[in-house]
Amino acid sequence: MKLDQLQKAYDESRDKAIEDFFTFLKFQSISSELEQAPKVRECGDWVQGFLDGIGFHTELWETMLHPVIFAQWTDAGEDKPTILIYNHYDVQPVDPIEEWESGPFEPTIRDGEVYARGAQDNKGQCFYVLHALRLLMEKEGKLPVNVKLFIEGAEEIGSTGSSNILEQKKEDLKADYLAIVDMGIHRPNEPAVTLGVRGISTLEVEVQGSNTDLHSGSHGGIVYNPLHALSEMIAKLRDEEGTVLVPGFYDDVEELSDEDRNRVCLEFSENEYEEMFGAKPVGGERAYSPVERACVRPTVEVNGLWGGYTGDGFKTVIPAKAHAKISCRVVPHQDPDQTARLVGDYLEEIAPEGVKVKVNVHQGAGGAVRASVDSKVVKAFANAYEEIFRKPCKYIFEGGSIPIVPALADASGGEVVLVGLGLPDDQIHAPNEHFGLDRIERGVLLIGRTLDYLSQEV
Amino acid sequence: MKLDQLQKAYDESRDKAIEDFFTFLKFQSISSELEQAPKVRECGDWVQGFLDGIGFHTELWETMLHPVIFAQWTDAGEDKPTILIYNHYDVQPVDPIEEWESGPFEPTIRDGEVYARGAQDNKGQCFYVLHALRLLMEKEGKLPVNVKLFIEGAEEIGSTGSSNILEQKKEDLKADYLAIVDMGIHRPNEPAVTLGVRGISTLEVEVQGSNTDLHSGSHGGIVYNPLHALSEMIAKLRDEEGTVLVPGFYDDVEELSDEDRNRVCLEFSENEYEEMFGAKPVGGERAYSPVERACVRPTVEVNGLWGGYTGDGFKTVIPAKAHAKISCRVVPHQDPDQTARLVGDYLEEIAPEGVKVKVNVHQGAGGAVRASVDSKVVKAFANAYEEIFRKPCKYIFEGGSIPIVPALADASGGEVVLVGLGLPDDQIHAPNEHFGLDRIERGVLLIGRTLDYLSQEV
Repeated sequence: MKLDQLQKAYDESRDKAIEDFFTFLKFQSISSELEQAPKVRECGDWVQGFLDGIGFHTELWETMLHPVIFAQWTDAGEDKPTILIYNHYDVQPVDPIEEWESGPFEPTIRDGEVYARGAQDNKGQCFYVLHALRLLMEKEGKLPVNVKLFIEGAEEIGSTGSSNILEQKKEDLKADYLAIVDMGIHRPNEPAVTLGVRGISTLEVEVQGSNTDLHSGSHGGIVYNPLHALSEMIAKLRDEEGTVLVPGFYDDVEELSDEDRNRVCLEFSENEYEEMFGAKPVGGERAYSPVERACVRPTVEVNGLWGGYTGDGFKTVIPAKAHAKISCRVVPHQDPDQTARLVGDYLEEIAPEGVKVKVNVHQGAGGAVRASVDSKVVKAFANAYEEIFRKPCKYIFEGGSIPIVPALADASGGEVVLVGLGLPDDQIHAPNEHFGLDRIERGVLLIGRTLDYLSQEV
Repeated sequence: MKLDQLQKAYDESRDKAIEDFFTFLKFQSISSELEQAPKVRECGDWVQGFLDGIGFHTELWETMLHPVIFAQWTDAGEDKPTILIYNHYDVQPVDPIEEWESGPFEPTIRDGEVYARGAQDNKGQCFYVLHALRLLMEKEGKLPVNVKLFIEGAEEIGSTGSSNILEQKKEDLKADYLAIVDMGIHRPNEPAVTLGVRGISTLEVEVQGSNTDLHSGSHGGIVYNPLHALSEMIAKLRDEEGTVLVPGFYDDVEELSDEDRNRVCLEFSENEYEEMFGAKPVGGERAYSPVERACVRPTVEVNGLWGGYTGDGFKTVIPAKAHAKISCRVVPHQDPDQTARLVGDYLEEIAPEGVKVKVNVHQGAGGAVRASVDSKVVKAFANAYEEIFRKPCKYIFEGGSIPIVPALADASGGEVVLVGLGLPDDQIHAPNEHFGLDRIERGVLLIGRTLDYLSQEV
């Protein structure tokens, strides 16, 4: 459909769209709360019902945890390409619940924004995909290309379960293109295709001194306090310039091409950043700009650190153990598991005498993903963005990770593109998450127009 | 009384002693659980009643928290010296309660050891003082010297309240000697007088980066992660040799005399230590022996460290804040408050750009205390120990701190001595605390004989 037709179809369907979006948002599909698993499944059932209703062939793929909704409409013909679209219907927990201005599962519109858990991440972005497909099927009885959907229920828990079934579902997932519709743009009126996400691997480190907590009066100065040992080990992860000191860490890291570097480095205001987040952007590798550091350079970051007495008042304890949770963000060519192991090995090696170190590299690592600005699917999305926003499309990189993407790309064999309409202040994973109705609308147009561009010969 | 008379009196009173000791142990006088304050007071009332019953003049001194029991018997005459004895009737919390083999407030004898919270610290050591005084008063109707008792109910919470009333009670507390009966010996059959305890001051450090927790995907590499900042700051507290790098930290520290050094350095088995505690004694200043490091050298020790995500699984957060609780153990001439401030100032100064540091030096610091091996009260205790144990008395130093002691010594004007019959494996502050009935007996003899030695002309 042309843009004006799509726009007309959306305008006529607006009330129905909001009604169905709200129904979707009301499911308490928090994937990490395993005792609530039936609520996640109910939400998946609703998604499946929606797609059944518009003429897709649907399947519910059981996993060890929450099911994946797989759906396809492949009657566009063999001469038309196939696009696999990725979304997820599970959401983050809602704590701290007291900071929500309206209930996280009672969607509420304020100033054109829908407030609810998942309003953006990812139910909002999933819903405009669903609704766009519905409009096309209702108005035209068909789609311009073959469309497959992989809508999982475990993204917020590292795709536990979902990622294990990819290999066996390879045939079903086969596609020319893979669109990850879970991304954002930097500013409301700046369309952008995301060309890359970093990969991630995580590990946990335990440093043990004595076999039991000791009194710091009697033992302070005798034993090597594991809190000091761990602090010193973490301090040695990076030098004063922010360069990671783990041997081999950068071995497989490719420097960005000048072209990509120019794309990445555009438009970052240190002042704006400090105003928004209250901190100067002065962490990480000094040799690179803040945006490069966040998006295309690898990092080692401590995400949790604990040991000893942490309550009110004071306890003069030398704890037996100290702990850290550490994540590595990796870039193309870096193996995430191997990178985590390098970090773990290094920490074991630099541990001072007197403590024992245990490293546990977690399962579920995922590599980095890069899209090519020259690929047809990137161009199709870019064209659609430009047509809808009436502005040139930008190409950006995202520092976050969607661990399932590399495996999904492998399984489907499709060229990847990462798109979406998230904004930095949507409060995803936080209280008062929200997503604009204008973005539901634009999302519908984006999907509709992209499928059309994809169906055209280049 | 002579030793054999004392022994006979104790033997005859043994059942009564155990009965009363058990009564004392059953009070749940946990000073830190403020909602349980009445139970602490009940225990203090019992102590006061005991002393009333044996002919002491008693007072209950109200403080802002738990009362001090002050008692005196001063009819020995002005030509006899006055000794002020310090004990406390409050105890530590009992968690982890599930690790107790019998209830912490249900005293139980196994293999001659009494198991209960406070069995040693300090009800056991307080009780043998009380029972010794009772035997002397019952058998002789008088004591060989004037005796005052200061038995507080807040030692385990840094003498909160108790320490504030010392100045106004100066006249009452006046004494020639001050005996802190809250110490230990290294081995069951090695009598020892403690010649020194370290002082202590504590502080809390908060390191703030951004104004809110950030996602490590989008912000990793941009902001200075406060967990890294704090780790690096802690790592800079000491150099590779364990020397504290805080400017001015050692300024007032006096090197030990060779004589004292020889006392301190005797008998420390690295193997025995490692076997007992599971860690090599390789922390702290390498230039000093383990015992020196633990007893007569100052330390800076992190006792608690936390920030970020510390639960199960993983959360890719860069926390807004990281925290540490730090204690300084100080030696004679070091001002504990000033030392804590030096540490705080240093941490503020070395904090990397991009984070803000808040330091809170806690109230309630106490200085170090030293007794002289030549003082009459040290000699009196040493003589008593040698007579009872039939072994030469050792002189030891203790690394722990009893913050109220310097102020109590000031208020009383008395020469200090630190004594007791604790053993390293009494499990004080831990589950299954215990104290031997043989040590109740020896404690009674020790107090009885010491008072006798004190009454004699040198």
